[in-house]
Amino acid sequence: MTSTGQVWTRPLPSGVGAQAMERALEAFSAALGAERVLTDEAKLREFRDPFQHASSDDYTASAVVMPTTVQEIQAIVRIANETSVPLWTHGQGRNNGYGGPAPRVKGSVIVSLRNMNRVLEVNEELGYAVVEPGVRWFDLYEAIEARGGRLMLSIADLGWGSVVGNTLEHGGTYLPYGLDFQMQCGMEVVLATGEVMRTGMGAMPGNRAWHCYKRGLGPTPDQLFMQSNFGIVTKMGIWLMPKPEVYMPLWLRVWNDDDLAPLVDTLRVLMLDDTIRMVPQIMSPILLGAVFSRREQWYTGAGPMPDEAVERMARGLDTGRWMMRFALYGDEAVVDHRFAKVEAAFKRAIPNCELWGTKYTPEQFATIQNPSERVQAGVPNLDLNAMTAWYGGEEGGHIGFSPIAPLTGRDAVAVRDLLRSMVEEAGLDYIAGLMPLTTRSFVHVTMVIFDTKDERQVRTAYDVARRLVREAAKRGYGEYRAHLDFMDLASDQYSFNHHAYRRFNETIKDALDPNGILSPGKQGIWPRHLRNGRA
Amino acid sequence: MTSTGQVWTRPLPSGVGAQAMERALEAFSAALGAERVLTDEAKLREFRDPFQHASSDDYTASAVVMPTTVQEIQAIVRIANETSVPLWTHGQGRNNGYGGPAPRVKGSVIVSLRNMNRVLEVNEELGYAVVEPGVRWFDLYEAIEARGGRLMLSIADLGWGSVVGNTLEHGGTYLPYGLDFQMQCGMEVVLATGEVMRTGMGAMPGNRAWHCYKRGLGPTPDQLFMQSNFGIVTKMGIWLMPKPEVYMPLWLRVWNDDDLAPLVDTLRVLMLDDTIRMVPQIMSPILLGAVFSRREQWYTGAGPMPDEAVERMARGLDTGRWMMRFALYGDEAVVDHRFAKVEAAFKRAIPNCELWGTKYTPEQFATIQNPSERVQAGVPNLDLNAMTAWYGGEEGGHIGFSPIAPLTGRDAVAVRDLLRSMVEEAGLDYIAGLMPLTTRSFVHVTMVIFDTKDERQVRTAYDVARRLVREAAKRGYGEYRAHLDFMDLASDQYSFNHHAYRRFNETIKDALDPNGILSPGKQGIWPRHLRNGRA
Repeated sequence: MTSTGQVWTRPLPSGVGAQAMERALEAFSAALGAERVLTDEAKLREFRDPFQHASSDDYTASAVVMPTTVQEIQAIVRIANETSVPLWTHGQGRNNGYGGPAPRVKGSVIVSLRNMNRVLEVNEELGYAVVEPGVRWFDLYEAIEARGGRLMLSIADLGWGSVVGNTLEHGGTYLPYGLDFQMQCGMEVVLATGEVMRTGMGAMPGNRAWHCYKRGLGPTPDQLFMQSNFGIVTKMGIWLMPKPEVYMPLWLRVWNDDDLAPLVDTLRVLMLDDTIRMVPQIMSPILLGAVFSRREQWYTGAGPMPDEAVERMARGLDTGRWMMRFALYGDEAVVDHRFAKVEAAFKRAIPNCELWGTKYTPEQFATIQNPSERVQAGVPNLDLNAMTAWYGGEEGGHIGFSPIAPLTGRDAVAVRDLLRSMVEEAGLDYIAGLMPLTTRSFVHVTMVIFDTKDERQVRTAYDVARRLVREAAKRGYGEYRAHLDFMDLASDQYSFNHHAYRRFNETIKDALDPNGILSPGKQGIWPRHLRNGRA
Repeated sequence: MTSTGQVWTRPLPSGVGAQAMERALEAFSAALGAERVLTDEAKLREFRDPFQHASSDDYTASAVVMPTTVQEIQAIVRIANETSVPLWTHGQGRNNGYGGPAPRVKGSVIVSLRNMNRVLEVNEELGYAVVEPGVRWFDLYEAIEARGGRLMLSIADLGWGSVVGNTLEHGGTYLPYGLDFQMQCGMEVVLATGEVMRTGMGAMPGNRAWHCYKRGLGPTPDQLFMQSNFGIVTKMGIWLMPKPEVYMPLWLRVWNDDDLAPLVDTLRVLMLDDTIRMVPQIMSPILLGAVFSRREQWYTGAGPMPDEAVERMARGLDTGRWMMRFALYGDEAVVDHRFAKVEAAFKRAIPNCELWGTKYTPEQFATIQNPSERVQAGVPNLDLNAMTAWYGGEEGGHIGFSPIAPLTGRDAVAVRDLLRSMVEEAGLDYIAGLMPLTTRSFVHVTMVIFDTKDERQVRTAYDVARRLVREAAKRGYGEYRAHLDFMDLASDQYSFNHHAYRRFNETIKDALDPNGILSPGKQGIWPRHLRNGRA
C-alpha cells in the first residue's frame, strides 16, 4: 500500500520478470545491506523527474541502490549481469530540465552515488582535486577552503549538483576553467564486466602524473564515458585554478532586442584575443524576470507575453533586453587594462549599452551577495533555482532545450528568432540564455517553463520541445544534451552517413556491455536487445 | 634487381601469402592508378625509419599507397579487408625518434596521406582551419597568411610534420594553444569497415558548429583515434589564435645544474596563475650543444662527456646548465606587466639567473631570425633538425625516450638523475629537454643520439632505451609516446588491474576492426589474430 492508499506495483523493465527482479533486489541487499536498497514508493518518489507531470509514470525506477565503495559498485554490476536488470547511474541526479535522476527505461534500478562523496585529494601545489562521484560543488568548495583555500573551482549555477555528474553530462561551469572542458584529468571507471579500469597515466600502477597530464600511452577513453553508458565513473581528477589577485564580476545591459548581434560579435573578438577568459551568460529579459518576479505582475492575458509587456518588465526590473554576466580575473593591473578595453569595445559597438562591475580580492569572495557574482567567484549557492514558478503554480517545471551554435551575431539572432517564434506559437513565453558561452560557440538554452500541475500546459511544452529539436536541426543547430523524453529524437538528428556515429556507439556498446545492463537508452545508445523497439 | 644489384624480396606480413599480396597490389593499382602504388625498393627506402641501422630490415613495408581522396581510402580499406593485408597510415611520416613512417608489422602496406594535403577552410571570424591529413605546418602557415594573415597556428619545432599526424600522436606544439591539447575540434574518420564517420557536431548533416564546439550529443570519440589504430582520420578542425599585439620571446639561463628545481617550481607558479601561457622548453646543455657544435670540439675521450667538459661547453656556447625558451603574448601593457613579474619571480628564486627577450609586432614575425623564436611565433622552419650529427657521423639518429612527470622541481631532478645515470652508464651522453612542458606536467625527452652507421652504438642506444622504459615506470614515470621498437614494452608498463586498459582497447579493436587490418601493433594494441605473439 502506498501513502495515498493505492496499491503500488513495482515497474519491471521490459524482458525482466518479477522473479528475476526479486532475486536482484535480494542480492543487492546482501551486498550493500538492506537499508541501502530503497524499494518503497515514497522513497522512490524522490528519484523521479521533479518536473514531470504528477500523473505520469514514465521513467519510473523499480528501486534505488546506494553503494559507498567501488567494490559495492562491482557487486551491483555483477548482479545486474546475472539477472539482466538494467541500471541507471547518477552522482547527485540534479539533472533538472533533462529528466532529473529518472531512468530512460522504466523499471531500471537507479545506482545513486550520492553517498559516495569523499574528496580524496586536494593538491594545492599542482592545482587539482580528486573526487568521488557523489561530491557536490558545495562539498568540493568546502574541502578546498578547509585545505588551504588558495585554489578555486569552476562551478555550475546550482551548488547541489555533482562535480562528476555535471562533467559526465558535458555540463557547463562559469570560471576560466569552464572554457572548453578544460577541467577533467584522469578517471577510474567500473566497466560493464565489473572490472576497474584507470585512464590516462593512471593505467600505470603508481604513476605520479595521473591527474597532471590529460592523456596516457595509447588512445584516451575519458570522453567515451561522458553522455554515454559505457561504464560507471568512480573517481575523477579535476583541475583547480589559483585564486587571482582580483576578481571583477561585470554586467553588460543593452536595451534593443537586436543589440544581441553586435553584443555577440564584440564578445567573440574579446574572447578570441584572451581579454575575456571565462564563460559568460547572456540572458533574455524573461529569464531574469522569472528569477525576480512572477508573470502576473506584468501580464495576465492569454498566449505568450507580448513584446510591449516584455519591454515594460525589462524597464521595471532593469534587466534590459539582454543582460550579460561575465568577469575578469587576474592581477589588478591586468584586470584594469582589460576592463578599459572591454568598455571601449562595447561602447563602440553599442553606444547606449551599460557596463558596470566591482573588484574583489580573494578574502572577500565568500561575502559577495549577488548569486551570479558568487557563482563566478566559485562560491556555490542555490539562489538561481527560483525561476520555474514563473507561471504562478507552486510546482513549476522546465524542459531544457539546448542547441549549439557558432558564436556569431548572425547565428545568435537566427536561433533566437527560430526558437522564439516556435515557443510563442505554442502559447508559451520565450525564456532563454546563451549559456554556457565559450570562445567559438554557445548553447542557446531555451527554458520551456510550465506548471507541472497543469496537464495541458505540460503536454504543450513537451510537444513544442519535440518540434524544436527537429526544426533547429534542419537549420544546422543540434542539441548538446537531451531530455529523457527527446533523447532518441535528438540522437536521430545526428544522422550523417546513415547514422554512422550512432552505429559506431552501438558497436562499442555491444562490445563493452554485451548484456546491455548499463543505462540503456542513454543519449540514444541502446544495447542490441532493445534496439529494435527504438525506431 | 635493386639499385645495388641484389635481388630484393618483398617482405610479407605474417599470415599473408605472396598471392594475396599480389592481389592486393593489383587492386590498389586499379583503384588509385599504378603510379600511386609504390613497390620498388628504391622508392620504399624513403619510408623506412631514417634512424634505423643501415643493415636492419625490421619494420620494412611491402608497398606504399598514396591516395588523394576519402573514396580512395575507403577502397584501400576494402581491399585490405578482402586480402588481410595490414595497413599502416601516416600524414607525413615525420615521426622521427619514434620510428619515422615505418610500420610496426613488417610487410604492412603504408597508406601515405602526403598527397592529401588541402587546407579546406580558414575561418578568420571564428578562428579555425580544417585540414586534410597531409597538410604540413608549412602548408597551413602559408594558407593562413594567404587568407588574411590575422591568425596564428601553434606549431611544432620542425615545419615538415603533418598537423593531423602530430595531433594524432599527442605531439607537442609551443604557442598558447599548445597547452593541454586545446586545438583539435571535429574530425572525419574512415573506419575499418570502410565507412565514413564524422565526430562531434559533424555527426549532424549540415551542422554549423562542427569546428566550433568540441563535443556532440553522446560520447566524444575524437581522442579514441589518437595513438591508436581504430580509424583513418581524413579531415580535422584545428583552432587558431588571433595574432597578439605583441609577442615577446624570452630566454632564461641558469648556471648550476641544480637550479633546475627552483626554475621548475617558479615556472609552475607563473603558469598556474596564467602569467606564462604557452609551452616552454627547458634544454640541457648538450641538447643545445648538439645544435650549435660537434662533440669533438669539447671532448674526444671515451665514454660519456664528463661534467667538466659539459661545463666548459656550457660556458663556451653560453648555453648555461639549463636554458629555457618561452614567450609572452598579448597587449603590450599586459606583456610589460608580465615580463616584470616573471623577472622578479626568477631573480628571487635564482639570483644569478639571466633573462632576456625582445618584443615583436605581427608584421615582424616572419623576419625573426632565431629558429626557436620563429617557432614560438608560429613561423615554421627546419633549423632545429641539426642536432643528430653530435657524434660526428654523417648519418646521426636518435631515439626519443619521453616519460611524463608532474611539474615540480623534485620530479624534474629525480627524472634527470635517473635518466642521466642510466644513459651515462651505457657510455652515451645525456641530451635532454623538458618539452613539451605544460601547466602541471612535462615530458622529459631524452634524445638517445647515435651514429646510424655504428652498429655497436646503435645497439647500445636501443638497449639503454629499453632499460629506461622499465626503470622510469618503476618510479611512476610513463612514456607519453613510444618508439616502434618499444611500443609493446612501454604499453606493458600500463598494467593497472591486470592490464585492464589494454584489454579495454583490445575489446574496442576487435569490435571496430575484426580483421585487424588497421595499423596492427600501434602503441601496443594488437588485433586478436596477432595478440598471442606479442607477449
